[in-house]
Amino acid sequence: METRKAEEIFKEFKEHSIAEFFKKNRQMLGYSGKVRSLVTVVHEYVTNSLDACEEGNILPDIEVRVKQIDEDRYNIVVIDNGPGIPRTFVGKALATILAGTKFHRYVQQRGQQGIGAAGCTLFAQITTGKQILVKSGTGTGKAYSCNIAIDTIKNKPIVANLVDIGDFKGLYVEGEFADVKYENSDHGIYEYLRRTALSNPHVQIKFIDPEGKESVFVRAVNVMPERPKPTKPHPLGLAVNDLLEFAQMSQSRKLSAFLVDTFARVTPNKVAELKEFAKTLDFEKDPRTLTWPEAEELIKAFESVKWIAPDASQIKPIGEEQIKVALKNILDPEFMNVVERKPAVFKGGVPFIVEAAVAFGGTAGKKTDEGYSGSILRFANRVPLLFDIGSCAITVAARDVQWKRYNIDIDTQPVSILVNVSSAHIPYSGVGKESIAQEEEIIDEIKLAVMEAARGVQRYVSGKLRLHDEENRYKTIMRYTKQLAQDLHEITGKDQKKLEISIEQLVAKNYPKVTEKELPKKEKEEEPEIEEEN
Amino acid sequence: METRKAEEIFKEFKEHSIAEFFKKNRQMLGYSGKVRSLVTVVHEYVTNSLDACEEGNILPDIEVRVKQIDEDRYNIVVIDNGPGIPRTFVGKALATILAGTKFHRYVQQRGQQGIGAAGCTLFAQITTGKQILVKSGTGTGKAYSCNIAIDTIKNKPIVANLVDIGDFKGLYVEGEFADVKYENSDHGIYEYLRRTALSNPHVQIKFIDPEGKESVFVRAVNVMPERPKPTKPHPLGLAVNDLLEFAQMSQSRKLSAFLVDTFARVTPNKVAELKEFAKTLDFEKDPRTLTWPEAEELIKAFESVKWIAPDASQIKPIGEEQIKVALKNILDPEFMNVVERKPAVFKGGVPFIVEAAVAFGGTAGKKTDEGYSGSILRFANRVPLLFDIGSCAITVAARDVQWKRYNIDIDTQPVSILVNVSSAHIPYSGVGKESIAQEEEIIDEIKLAVMEAARGVQRYVSGKLRLHDEENRYKTIMRYTKQLAQDLHEITGKDQKKLEISIEQLVAKNYPKVTEKELPKKEKEEEPEIEEEN
Repeated sequence: METRKAEEIFKEFKEHSIAEFFKKNRQMLGYSGKVRSLVTVVHEYVTNSLDACEEGNILPDIEVRVKQIDEDRYNIVVIDNGPGIPRTFVGKALATILAGTKFHRYVQQRGQQGIGAAGCTLFAQITTGKQILVKSGTGTGKAYSCNIAIDTIKNKPIVANLVDIGDFKGLYVEGEFADVKYENSDHGIYEYLRRTALSNPHVQIKFIDPEGKESVFVRAVNVMPERPKPTKPHPLGLAVNDLLEFAQMSQSRKLSAFLVDTFARVTPNKVAELKEFAKTLDFEKDPRTLTWPEAEELIKAFESVKWIAPDASQIKPIGEEQIKVALKNILDPEFMNVVERKPAVFKGGVPFIVEAAVAFGGTAGKKTDEGYSGSILRFANRVPLLFDIGSCAITVAARDVQWKRYNIDIDTQPVSILVNVSSAHIPYSGVGKESIAQEEEIIDEIKLAVMEAARGVQRYVSGKLRLHDEENRYKTIMRYTKQLAQDLHEITGKDQKKLEISIEQLVAKNYPKVTEKELPKKEKEEEPEIEEEN
Repeated sequence: METRKAEEIFKEFKEHSIAEFFKKNRQMLGYSGKVRSLVTVVHEYVTNSLDACEEGNILPDIEVRVKQIDEDRYNIVVIDNGPGIPRTFVGKALATILAGTKFHRYVQQRGQQGIGAAGCTLFAQITTGKQILVKSGTGTGKAYSCNIAIDTIKNKPIVANLVDIGDFKGLYVEGEFADVKYENSDHGIYEYLRRTALSNPHVQIKFIDPEGKESVFVRAVNVMPERPKPTKPHPLGLAVNDLLEFAQMSQSRKLSAFLVDTFARVTPNKVAELKEFAKTLDFEKDPRTLTWPEAEELIKAFESVKWIAPDASQIKPIGEEQIKVALKNILDPEFMNVVERKPAVFKGGVPFIVEAAVAFGGTAGKKTDEGYSGSILRFANRVPLLFDIGSCAITVAARDVQWKRYNIDIDTQPVSILVNVSSAHIPYSGVGKESIAQEEEIIDEIKLAVMEAARGVQRYVSGKLRLHDEENRYKTIMRYTKQLAQDLHEITGKDQKKLEISIEQLVAKNYPKVTEKELPKKEKEEEPEIEEEN
């Protein structure tokens, strides 16, 4: 067989737009599986609405309508009362992949990529050929409506039928999607919205399901949470490359001023300390001329100095009280314990906060054929994560805890573990944002949080367990009594029935901690009086 | 608090390049965790080399060198004997994300995205600031060397120091990466290369590890496997949108001709059949004028007609014999069974083939504190998948099998399941290509394959198990004999020692299937002669 030359092979070389890429790999956006695909659409629109309302300082009022059109084909409407989208931006905001207001800023928001809404537009387009209907009123002029699609070859928006409409304030999006399915399960839209409402008590959500049933998740808190402000990166966790990029964009004339201006917790005093560790470095130089080896030296100095923990004020977790309310509502457990960790720092100097809870009993855990197994409720920036559980840092961390130490067995007990990770930049493992990447720093923090939460339920579970164990042992032994009585009868020649009763009494005497009430009763058999044998 | 207007918020609106996106989300490319990141680099370069050699009809000879530079900092070199890259393409091929020869074709290859190598360039750049050194000789002129980097803002290549070098045939890439770690484990480079060699017997791989140790995975088959040709999509699995896109690009003048030319298994006879189901559709019309409703009608007709299964000749699985060789080499199991399924069709009409094997004993399974649990060896197009196991369709399918039916318990037995999925387009769940998306069609096929493989080992495992169970029951009962003898002594007044012996004999008599040799011996106790009691 003849070999082929590179020139011939490379005739087929092409560049592709990111829209073409996702068109061919829609599963990477979360569009795999019918049930998941439908939830993904709602998830993208609702997180966008929440972010928009909060950016506009408006208490979010969101309505989600799901209507079945045909088998595996649904119409979805999401309406919010947010600031809307200026008409010059509507195409790019909803039909260009990798465009938005969030990607380049260090602010804690639910969306962070500029992919979600454009992904929905793409998904509608490839499954039904339909454009997305948009209505928007910004409150500063006439509202408009239009249709939106993506030119996938160029990753550019197509805006059609742009017309003025009457009064409207907020954003209305409507799309038709096929290859999707509505399911009322733990992985369905209702559950997604319920969990969203529980972790965002300032939000009101109305949901109209395919059967026309209306559910309202009522706003529990009438105060707008303080809007997270952009956070400065913390010196710990910064890589050489991060430092150089910040330096290149700096407006400061001196390296020392740049450090104080750009990073959290860097004061002139700290700069003086840094000088001790980076002796050859000129702190008076223009930060834009910083070289890789110099930046490397600075990073080493960063690691040698003691730092105050990052400022948590700009990260808004769910909060202990609200987690308790949420767990009570979702699981109604017998017992629970909630923990909020101090902020930690991830790669790039990004601070993050982990909250964890362990709940026992009620509807906690998952019912299985053999009894129970533990379940995990995952959140990232208060957004419930319903899919990709296996690859998530939360799952890996929770499973890695030595549960035996806490007398808990997550394989057989009704235990639920809740974890919420909050940060200006969550390292999602995929574009679909359904799981957090397995980064060491994050796994470690989650583990510590879960362990702390587990410690709080340990005593309760231990008590439960002891009773359970004794009951089990008792039942096991009782199972043997009949066979034993028969065997003994053969050995000793004594009356089998009497032997059986004697053995049962002996066993019962040896397990006095199991209270009468809890002892299993023999069915349909009278307990005869017992002759004492000596 | 004042509300903010959309105009103000949208001042921060920006578009971003895909390179910027991955720079900030490198974990999505597989660069999360130090060990995994290092394997990802090798994985990307090696799959590219294998694809290139096969495209060039050259038996692949690959060398991988890993050298430690500092803590968490390594130099990686990958050299192949492939066709090389023409110098006009070297920048785009290795430093532009979403550019390549593979994305737009329906050919079974390992890479399919045009992201991998550019991702390595990006990763080197952000962790060490170093460019990638490339040497390439295409065999059609002088070889060259150059340095490569990405302008991430524009997603454009930077090519520096391009110079002619002497004789060189193939491709040489060298990069320095930090935030990585070499580990000799199941998730390490050695294991990755070993599994690659085992599933690609026509490949020779030399590996030099950080300690300078050289391993050669010798070529086992000296014949080049037939090169997969582009496959035509099969009518089943096509969506409306796919059909319309093919129609738009068609050179045919009539719809009927377009169908015959474009899709597998469509003959003029089949077109006649289709006409019966799509009666209102004009099969003489220009395919480029096909509308969405018309395409929808055609898709329905496709689903009503009987089709021959897709042509498997262009999909190259590992093959039963080679899987046996690989399993013998990796696990040396006591028993195994290998199954290759007929081709099935996935979304978009893409055919795929699943191979599965179940192996028992040897070093199969995973050793745990309590004994064993099952393990899964995953491959896609003969590329070993080492990470993201939890979210992979293979894992989900394998776990979903009702193992009890086959007398297998994957939670406690030394069982390994191997699955390889082969296709011109594998729907990976993420850009890092470490797991297959949970698509229904694929999960179903994998399940069927695994079940078939399990059936083949069932009888062997059942025999093993029976023995094991009896031993266990025997041991459990024996544990009670002492306590029982004491209790019986209290009830009957007979000699305790004698009772104990009698009970033990009784028990032993009831478990005759456990052979003498396997019975647990009592330690440090003489077996006294027994008095018969009647």
